[in-house]
Order: sequence, then structure tokens, then C-alpha cells
Amino acid sequence: MSNQKIFRVIKTEIRVLGIDDGKFTPRKEGNVIIVGVVFRGGCSIDGVMRTTIAIDGLDATEQFASMINASPHRRQLRLVMLNGITFAGFNVVDIKKLNAATNLPVMALTQERPDLGAIYEALTNLPNIEERWKKILEAGEIHEVINNGTKIYIELAGISLSDAQKIIAVTSTRSSLPEPLRVAHLIASGISP
Amino acid sequence: MSNQKIFRVIKTEIRVLGIDDGKFTPRKEGNVIIVGVVFRGGCSIDGVMRTTIAIDGLDATEQFASMINASPHRRQLRLVMLNGITFAGFNVVDIKKLNAATNLPVMALTQERPDLGAIYEALTNLPNIEERWKKILEAGEIHEVINNGTKIYIELAGISLSDAQKIIAVTSTRSSLPEPLRVAHLIASGISP
Repeated sequence: MSNQKIFRVIKTEIRVLGIDDGKFTPRKEGNVIIVGVVFRGGCSIDGVMRTTIAIDGLDATEQFASMINASPHRRQLRLVMLNGITFAGFNVVDIKKLNAATNLPVMALTQERPDLGAIYEALTNLPNIEERWKKILEAGEIHEVINNGTKIYIELAGISLSDAQKIIAVTSTRSSLPEPLRVAHLIASGISP
Repeated sequence: MSNQKIFRVIKTEIRVLGIDDGKFTPRKEGNVIIVGVVFRGGCSIDGVMRTTIAIDGLDATEQFASMINASPHRRQLRLVMLNGITFAGFNVVDIKKLNAATNLPVMALTQERPDLGAIYEALTNLPNIEERWKKILEAGEIHEVINNGTKIYIELAGISLSDAQKIIAVTSTRSSLPEPLRVAHLIASGISP
């Protein structure tokens, strides 16, 4: 908690990066496109960025950090929102490391409570079980939050729960999912071949 | 003009598809990604679709029509907005044919007045000059319109100038460029490798 970013005020036009992955065939070797969308609050898109990661690979944290740090939007960004912490199958993001590497608070958000038992079970079919499991545990506490009347689940690095909830409220203009994540999902799945 | 769609009313949440192309190396053989964004008026994204076309090819009209007609969003759409009529170099869209093939009004919009002399000049370096030039001429009159204080240029198929101007006004919430085109450009260029 030592490097937790304290927001004096959450502006309605706060720049938030939402990240999601494209479509892919599970357990097949290959790369998946990752899309990042720069949202201005809950209303307008300022930019789009992309990278790729390996299906069931170990490079998500590093690739996300490089994409963010290389972006011309980096200096405007105040928060990174992830659609959960597993991408392209079981390529797990270490949200504490991503927070440290980008110097930006990170929030992983899901609409269903992560089932750690089922995740561990699935991991046992992959190499590097312990490395992946460690990242999952290090994401820390899973907070249950009510957003626009719906339960959502968030894990945080570098931001307080109270600030995170304020940013979720500002960016959830269309549904119980914040716009940066709703639109990142539409783009990533829409452009997948 | 016989198949011109008459809008009784332009809803503020009218579904408009904005289309733009991704980045590519001019005059090199290959395909370019084309992104279509379904906008709800000038505010919210309902979906994203994609296809590819050949650099300096002749398949834009056909590929755009297939992408649109195959989309689950087709029935909600009321207008197709193109970022000009040339994509991926000189792959020219026949907007009358696109209008007929999709049964949707088509508007091609640019921020600079198309320089037909320069376009013809460039065409002379390519095969199928006459076929391309015919599509350019068949796009019809280039209308100069003032939008949010800035001149823009539009060519129309299947819609009146007055209805077209109303839809431009409804969708231009952030700049002089309608949101479907502004965001299609951000996505298409942002996701290009």
C-alpha cells in the first residue's frame, strides 16, 4: 500500500485506459490481440492502442506495460482498468508489477466472482503453475462492489477502494460495466478475424 | 434519386456506421484492415466490425457491403458514413452501388475538398484507371457544408442533403467530424500493427 496513489479529486473527464483481449482458440499456440482504449470519463474516446500476447503465455504483464509506456497517451492516463487478470487463456497479469512498471493505479474488474478453485484446477494443465498461481494470489483481496444495482468484483493495485469506486461510478455511464471496459471488449472482439 | 430514403424524423440515438481504414504502406501489395463502428447518435458505441481490402485493389465496395450485410447490427443501422470514397490507397467505393447493395443511405465525408485533378493524376499510375475514375465521378456532386464552424465536404447516395446535414449535426458531438468517423479512425489506426 506504500505506493498507493491518492486522488485529491476525481474529475468527470479523468482519462482511463480499458484493456481487453480479442477472440482466440483456447489452448492453441499463437498470439492474441490486446486492445487498450483511452476513455475520457464515461463519454468519449481519446485513443486506441494495441499489442499482442501469447495464448496461455507468461508475457501479459510485460506487454501491457510496454504498450502503455510507449503510448503518446501515457501522460494523460490516471488509471488502468483490466477485464479481470487473466487474458488469452491463462496469461495472468501481475497487477502489482503492472502498477510499478507504469506508475499507474491498476484495477481488475469482473462481472462474476473469480472462482479461485476452478482457476487453480485449470492451471494444473499448464506449465509454470506456481508462477501463474502466485500472480493470481498477489492480486490481493477481491472486493465485491455494487455498481448501478449490479454486483461487480474488483482487485486493486496502487489505489484505495474508495477512489476506485468513485472512478467506477464516473465511468459507468451506460451499464454496470465501466465504458472503458465495455468498449475495449466491443473493439477487441469486433476486430478479431 | 429514385431510391432516396426519406427520414420522417432523425432520432438523437440514430444508429450510424462509421468506416475507416487502418495504416498501410502505400503502393505495396497486401491487405488493409477496415473498421466499422456502430454509433448510437453522437455518444455511445454499440458495436465494432471489420473486414480487409486490397491495397489499390478494386474490392472495397463489395467487401464493405458484405461486412455490413453480415453484421448482427445491420437491422439497427440507418446510415453508412465513409471517410471519403478512396480506401487503402485507390481502392474506390462506388457509393451508389454500396447504397443499393445494403439498402442503406451512404455518405462519404472529407475534411478537405477532394482534388479531382490530383486524384486523376494519381490514378494514371494504376491499372483499371477508367473503372476507378467512373466510381469517383459517379459519387456525384460534392457538397460543401459548414459543421460546427468548419467546412466539410460530402457526397451522398440514397439520402437528401437536408437529411444528411441533420445526421451530421446529431453525430458531431466532439468536433467538426461526426463521432462515427472520428472513432473509426482512432480504432483503425490504433489497432494497425
